[in-house]
Amino acid sequence: MSELKTRILDMVKTDLAEIETALVENLKPNVELVSTIAGHILFSGGKRLRPLLMVLCAKICHYQGGYDKTFSIIFEYLHAATLLHDDVVDGALMRRGKPAAHSLWGGAAAVLTGDFLLARSLAIAAETGNIRIIRTISEITDNMAQGEIHQLMRKGDIHLSEAEYLEVIRRKTAVLFQGACRVSALIADAPQGWETALADYGFHLGMAFQMADDLLDYTEDSLALGKTVGADLKEGKLTLPVIYALKAAGTKDRQRMEAIISNTEFSVPEFQELVEYLKAYGGIDYTWQKANAHIESAKTAIARFEPSVPREILMDVADYALKRKS
Amino acid sequence: MSELKTRILDMVKTDLAEIETALVENLKPNVELVSTIAGHILFSGGKRLRPLLMVLCAKICHYQGGYDKTFSIIFEYLHAATLLHDDVVDGALMRRGKPAAHSLWGGAAAVLTGDFLLARSLAIAAETGNIRIIRTISEITDNMAQGEIHQLMRKGDIHLSEAEYLEVIRRKTAVLFQGACRVSALIADAPQGWETALADYGFHLGMAFQMADDLLDYTEDSLALGKTVGADLKEGKLTLPVIYALKAAGTKDRQRMEAIISNTEFSVPEFQELVEYLKAYGGIDYTWQKANAHIESAKTAIARFEPSVPREILMDVADYALKRKS
Repeated sequence: MSELKTRILDMVKTDLAEIETALVENLKPNVELVSTIAGHILFSGGKRLRPLLMVLCAKICHYQGGYDKTFSIIFEYLHAATLLHDDVVDGALMRRGKPAAHSLWGGAAAVLTGDFLLARSLAIAAETGNIRIIRTISEITDNMAQGEIHQLMRKGDIHLSEAEYLEVIRRKTAVLFQGACRVSALIADAPQGWETALADYGFHLGMAFQMADDLLDYTEDSLALGKTVGADLKEGKLTLPVIYALKAAGTKDRQRMEAIISNTEFSVPEFQELVEYLKAYGGIDYTWQKANAHIESAKTAIARFEPSVPREILMDVADYALKRKS
Repeated sequence: MSELKTRILDMVKTDLAEIETALVENLKPNVELVSTIAGHILFSGGKRLRPLLMVLCAKICHYQGGYDKTFSIIFEYLHAATLLHDDVVDGALMRRGKPAAHSLWGGAAAVLTGDFLLARSLAIAAETGNIRIIRTISEITDNMAQGEIHQLMRKGDIHLSEAEYLEVIRRKTAVLFQGACRVSALIADAPQGWETALADYGFHLGMAFQMADDLLDYTEDSLALGKTVGADLKEGKLTLPVIYALKAAGTKDRQRMEAIISNTEFSVPEFQELVEYLKAYGGIDYTWQKANAHIESAKTAIARFEPSVPREILMDVADYALKRKS
């Protein structure tokens, strides 16, 4: 474990333990299979990043109400719900090095457990009694569904533009991070300027986080992540490293790259060849630069708050988003 | 068309037209495929029963706010979302005589469009600004997901009890009807007694409606409904006519019935043989009686209101629930 990760985990140990308790206590399904499947996706090594963001941002807003842990799990349930649905949608067989829920219990049960987790998020949101929080949650759900559908529609299309890619990751990832940070300001009844700053932090962190995640497909040992080699491409997902390199390449190299990408049964050597093209045409570097720029924006947004322990942790989390390997 | 249906439709013509407009105007997806799939499920001959119930109950509560049509579509979007997910879950190929969405656009797109419609329902619920309405919607979603999972878990189990069947149909159908009627009282800020009466009406109507729907599999020409012969059984769904008859039959006949049911590839003559058993052992009659009793309870609940045109229509709707053929 990196020094940064150790430091963050050490600082948030108590918060994480309370988040875990809230995750278990609020699940309460009446049907056993729901408990099993929801448990499989919820308690299999998730980082709890989204609830943690909310809890940390609530501290920055001097929230004292005692409900931050409970409300923070809205974002983990939403996240788990979309993971369940996305794995069905993508036909992904593995998730965090374990079999995906739908490959163990079938797509039907995975879809319905996702629906249950969505309903549970909404129920907790309703408990806040705060209409702006409920609106934020409904906007997140709307954006995530539409972002995923957008991605699905353009599956396998080698003409996906950078603008479309950015719109997809904004909707499917950044809006949830942004919402988690915004809701902390809402429960704390913080000034509008604070809410905007925290929402900006969440948005930029989410964009960088997804870009870093997309980069992992081309920079890390997939096996170490419990992933298939070139998993995104095999699912027909073009991400920024590829989009940029395809645009930068000359005709001949682009045609070769397109030939590799179009055949989703590509071999490991073909994939390695593609990665060389991505490096040569700057796709990897460009994506890192973009992700870095978002991290800088996230830090700028959070820098407007007084120095404090939670602020420092959020700064560390921003740095960690680019350094993580899983 | 039956005289009763003609009379109801004539009385609610204007309301239905306004509900249709609201259904179109509130959909507004940014992604074209969502519009296509949501349109396919929403605009393919649905009866709009759930929004209509809300609008009629709002009239009974003397609601004058002008938002009843807009809020009523929450229940049609929720209904459409669950139809999309259920058809994926059941692998049903047809819906209202047309190909099911997932068989045209794939399970992935159908799941995500369902998610979008759930999100849209929630967004409209949030617009009411009324926490009790939002809680009702979240309870509906929770119940529907858990009811469907319960049904899925017990798929093909010939030991499903009547109590379990009742619990499943309560959650997957009656809670939505109940919610639509309850929310009308909430937007009208009606007295608690009115809310309870309308919720009771919706609950009993929903129970009867689902029983009548389950009976159609054994009493009507499936082709006329755009259904497969014995569709429920082929999907492994045991409903009340079968559950009751299995319990009432002697060992030999029960074993024969179980043999037919257990082979989901049963022939048409085998299915007809089963239907004869259901009749002989009172499964059909018993289910009709139960459905009738719920309709009587629904009417009793609504009878506590002053006589009025909407009250008469709700009485007619209750009668129609048992007479409909689709």
